[in-house]
Amino acid sequence: MAFHEEATEAATRFRETFVPSAMGPAPRRHVAVLACMDARLDLFRLLGLDVGDAHILRNAGGLLTDDAVRSLVLSQRALGTRHTVLIHHTDCGLQKITDESFLDELEGATGQRPPWVPGAFTDPFEDVRRALAVLRSCPWLLSTSAEGFVFDVATGELLPAEA
Amino acid sequence: MAFHEEATEAATRFRETFVPSAMGPAPRRHVAVLACMDARLDLFRLLGLDVGDAHILRNAGGLLTDDAVRSLVLSQRALGTRHTVLIHHTDCGLQKITDESFLDELEGATGQRPPWVPGAFTDPFEDVRRALAVLRSCPWLLSTSAEGFVFDVATGELLPAEA
Repeated sequence: MAFHEEATEAATRFRETFVPSAMGPAPRRHVAVLACMDARLDLFRLLGLDVGDAHILRNAGGLLTDDAVRSLVLSQRALGTRHTVLIHHTDCGLQKITDESFLDELEGATGQRPPWVPGAFTDPFEDVRRALAVLRSCPWLLSTSAEGFVFDVATGELLPAEA
Repeated sequence: MAFHEEATEAATRFRETFVPSAMGPAPRRHVAVLACMDARLDLFRLLGLDVGDAHILRNAGGLLTDDAVRSLVLSQRALGTRHTVLIHHTDCGLQKITDESFLDELEGATGQRPPWVPGAFTDPFEDVRRALAVLRSCPWLLSTSAEGFVFDVATGELLPAEA
């Protein structure tokens, strides 16, 4: 398929210009970013990050799921990050469904209901604030230093979720 | 803190050069990439991706957790992706712990044992192949088209996980 061939070519070019470094797995700037998987988010340029600076966590919505907590706890305890940045965005797919209707659709199509909740939300600012509250009360993190934003995909603005 | 100020400056520069586009939430190349959160992975350059091309999913290890399945099902059913790329890498933090000892450490430090499993593995190739098998039997995906790789952080090579 086209993707496979283009990715293989890109990987070959990448390797040809790859400069080995002594960089270990610990992010240089001790930061972890949790953001939505959305294709329009250019996280590195948006936050001024270079490769090596930060752990990047992404899922549908940028939700602070148990899996995101797992990743953040490992990030802090095994690899030294101490600050977390949460990013949701406008025009998110999770604003356009409801949990029940999406689960009903899956069950109707397959006969099986997933064990997970899709995570639909209406207001991305509110959802980031809720996630910040959960993060700040997480017992396993070494640092609950965190800030949250909503990226406006129409204007390119990064808007703070807390006043 | 330094990170906050530098990120705010970067976001301001980003906005100043932001070109509004009609790009919607559906990834242009109908691809989702699930990779480790590792700071050294330069996924866009490695796979020849541009912003807008693909959903990017990342967690500790690049594991196909329930949350990753949630994200992939949403990616396919709500936003039209039809191919998945899984990427683990060498020198991963999850090769350096065991699930039991990490959970014991958390319980010892906080008195509370998390409801999740860290997801330690020994061989990243084997773990990618196991994830591909789980993905290919997932009832909720519309397409189980997938390929898996291990990125060698020492050489810059992207190695296929399946022969």
